Amino acid sequence: MSSFKLCCYDAGRMERTLILDCNNKIGEKVKICGWVQVRRDHGKILFLDVLDRSGLIQVVIPIGVKLIHPPGVQDVVCIEGKVDKRPPNLVNKNIPTGEIEISAEHIEVLSKAAELPFDMGGKELDLQLPTLLDFRSLTLRHPKIKEIFKAQAAILEGFRKAASDLGCTEIVVPTIVAGATEGGAEVFKIDYFDHKAYLSQSPQLYKQMLVPVYERVFTIAKAYRAEPSVTTRHLAEATQLDIEIGFVEFEDLLDFLEEVAVKMLKFAEDFGVEQIAFGKIPRLTLRKAQDLILKEFGRDNRKEKDLTPQDEVDLCKWALEKHKSDFVTVTHFPTSAKPFYTMPDPAEPEYSLSYDLLFRGVEILSGSQRINDYEQLVKSIESRGMDPKNFEMYLQAFKYGMPPEGGFSFGLERVTMHVLGLANVREASLFPRDMERVDVRL
Amino acid sequence: MSSFKLCCYDAGRMERTLILDCNNKIGEKVKICGWVQVRRDHGKILFLDVLDRSGLIQVVIPIGVKLIHPPGVQDVVCIEGKVDKRPPNLVNKNIPTGEIEISAEHIEVLSKAAELPFDMGGKELDLQLPTLLDFRSLTLRHPKIKEIFKAQAAILEGFRKAASDLGCTEIVVPTIVAGATEGGAEVFKIDYFDHKAYLSQSPQLYKQMLVPVYERVFTIAKAYRAEPSVTTRHLAEATQLDIEIGFVEFEDLLDFLEEVAVKMLKFAEDFGVEQIAFGKIPRLTLRKAQDLILKEFGRDNRKEKDLTPQDEVDLCKWALEKHKSDFVTVTHFPTSAKPFYTMPDPAEPEYSLSYDLLFRGVEILSGSQRINDYEQLVKSIESRGMDPKNFEMYLQAFKYGMPPEGGFSFGLERVTMHVLGLANVREASLFPRDMERVDVRL
Repeated sequence: MSSFKLCCYDAGRMERTLILDCNNKIGEKVKICGWVQVRRDHGKILFLDVLDRSGLIQVVIPIGVKLIHPPGVQDVVCIEGKVDKRPPNLVNKNIPTGEIEISAEHIEVLSKAAELPFDMGGKELDLQLPTLLDFRSLTLRHPKIKEIFKAQAAILEGFRKAASDLGCTEIVVPTIVAGATEGGAEVFKIDYFDHKAYLSQSPQLYKQMLVPVYERVFTIAKAYRAEPSVTTRHLAEATQLDIEIGFVEFEDLLDFLEEVAVKMLKFAEDFGVEQIAFGKIPRLTLRKAQDLILKEFGRDNRKEKDLTPQDEVDLCKWALEKHKSDFVTVTHFPTSAKPFYTMPDPAEPEYSLSYDLLFRGVEILSGSQRINDYEQLVKSIESRGMDPKNFEMYLQAFKYGMPPEGGFSFGLERVTMHVLGLANVREASLFPRDMERVDVRL
Repeated sequence: MSSFKLCCYDAGRMERTLILDCNNKIGEKVKICGWVQVRRDHGKILFLDVLDRSGLIQVVIPIGVKLIHPPGVQDVVCIEGKVDKRPPNLVNKNIPTGEIEISAEHIEVLSKAAELPFDMGGKELDLQLPTLLDFRSLTLRHPKIKEIFKAQAAILEGFRKAASDLGCTEIVVPTIVAGATEGGAEVFKIDYFDHKAYLSQSPQLYKQMLVPVYERVFTIAKAYRAEPSVTTRHLAEATQLDIEIGFVEFEDLLDFLEEVAVKMLKFAEDFGVEQIAFGKIPRLTLRKAQDLILKEFGRDNRKEKDLTPQDEVDLCKWALEKHKSDFVTVTHFPTSAKPFYTMPDPAEPEYSLSYDLLFRGVEILSGSQRINDYEQLVKSIESRGMDPKNFEMYLQAFKYGMPPEGGFSFGLERVTMHVLGLANVREASLFPRDMERVDVRL
């Protein structure tokens, strides 16, 4: 052990220095605490890369010193030592602490990690999805994976900032509901005391109900879908970023959604995101978009009720080339293909005042102007074969005065996935739920 | 109708002015949009109080003008008119637009409200709880009720600000879980594809699992309790504000929780909250607190494992008198009364490194230093009669290196309830869930 003593974690010893702050402590003695990210054994000299919430630093355990229990990867350590400037030829320009290193004097292992089931020290974590998720509590520690959820946190913050800038009030909406929100898609049933209840498919109806209260609202809410699907795009439990706004016209809504999308993604740019093209976003009706697909890409999809996945890819390619924009707004989807609350275009009621925002080849947002007239809304519910009695509290909001209104919604995990170019939406959820897995495999 | 024409809502007419901005438009013509809050019929002259998201203004419909359909309460209106200064004797000092009024020239009713089931124009909304909730989409519009959820939005913002100041990363945790989180309390079962799953009782285990990833994390998450309880304090679906922090000692945790509580509640102070006493918060162990209850209030509860409700009231009375603080921190509850992850005090293991924060007579926060050693945690799970196999993903986080850590949790609705002095926690949830109600009565 020679000069290595136990460095007690408890009070009375040195105060902890965050790793990034070591840059200001050259020549001083510090104590750092963190995880061993990488261990390099160079014969008699041992190097550790130690990580805390502020950053990563190289720790040198000098020649001639023997450790009975040399720290291993993922061990939690407290290290006391001197901050040294590295020789110029050994500076690592890729990290903010690349000009310094710590020469260790005391090392304590606060928590010993079990032997790792795979290498965590590489730049990439090259694992198949099932393994990535079977060891989720471990794999989340890899710097590349950590960055995904740093980006996600930034997207959340950016969304809230953009929503606040619009004057929206934050609301907390329930997830336990009495009926299927939007009809159609499958819902999860709950044993609710002596009754049946369901998990909400979206915060849609509640955010609308709050328009007469705050006029402009936003919520970050859970959305559950019981679709027995194993595609790369579906989660059983997802997160929605929702905005709803009163006293608006269709064009305002398009302005707002584009403004929010741009602000939100600018927040994520620092976290491994390939530079986004923020040119003026082109707007096309579905039919114009389909005409363009025919003209530019030679596929005649003009009878389709929606864009095909390839259409979305091609439209974004076109938008990037012609408008220097990674986004395209597509409007006026067929009314019959949209939920009951969607406002038909008065000029042409088989099309609706609806919109999707495409980003790099996929839809990341959808929304619409809503039907705000009580009678029209009741008729729309009935026309879809649903019973207005199941929408009693929702309809109450319209019965007592509802202005023209509309809104939109992002899928948090989908946005995270596409902005980072991930292959599967499960990689964009800390603990993804699907039909095969709730943390562990079912 | 005389001078009153239809004021088209669609494009091409005047742009809308927010009501509060009318203060800067004296003598000018404006268009405002909003809800009729109050209507006063003074013989031939008609007054409307019109409300939008920015505020409220008095609208005068001059003598001699007849409206075929005079707007009623909760009608959505667009009104064009001139902004006039009020005569000095008619200034209303209670509202920011009290020095002005609008003399209406055009009025359009965009959405007609049905006849109200009760008076919405009073300063208070004096309804029994069942009626308040049966008409929730309507009653939320009352200014007093609106303010509750403005305060709640401010608490959310304040919490996030305080958590960010501590360096916490925001995380999104799942609500669908494979087993009961903490044992004990009853859980909601879900039909999860061909399996059984449950609604999470708290984000506790997930936030702990993220400590080795980001060291400091926060989350705003749902918590579900299937207790068949109809008390004023329980919701089936509640919202938790959670923080978890690595590399901390017990005293740090106490500092952090008090810092977060104070910052958070300062954000709410603008919204109908009686001024909070922010003196230095006294800290007492449970036993010291019980001694104090005996000495000061004459009740010998020293054998109780927890504070009684009256103890909480009295302790807060004492803290306010002696320390000018609306808060008291109570620590060291019996280990056996706390969840399995609670760290026993090494000096006296039958008591734990746990804490509650009391505010004005009730607990609004609880938390603890956690067991961070894998073996000790497994034993603690087993000692509660639970099977570590059901905690596989959770335990994985401890298996691969977990620092000393701890955290705490506020109940959003409880905090909102107590900071505003509401009688029932249901009043602090936009759409409260309990065993009798999911929006409508079951």
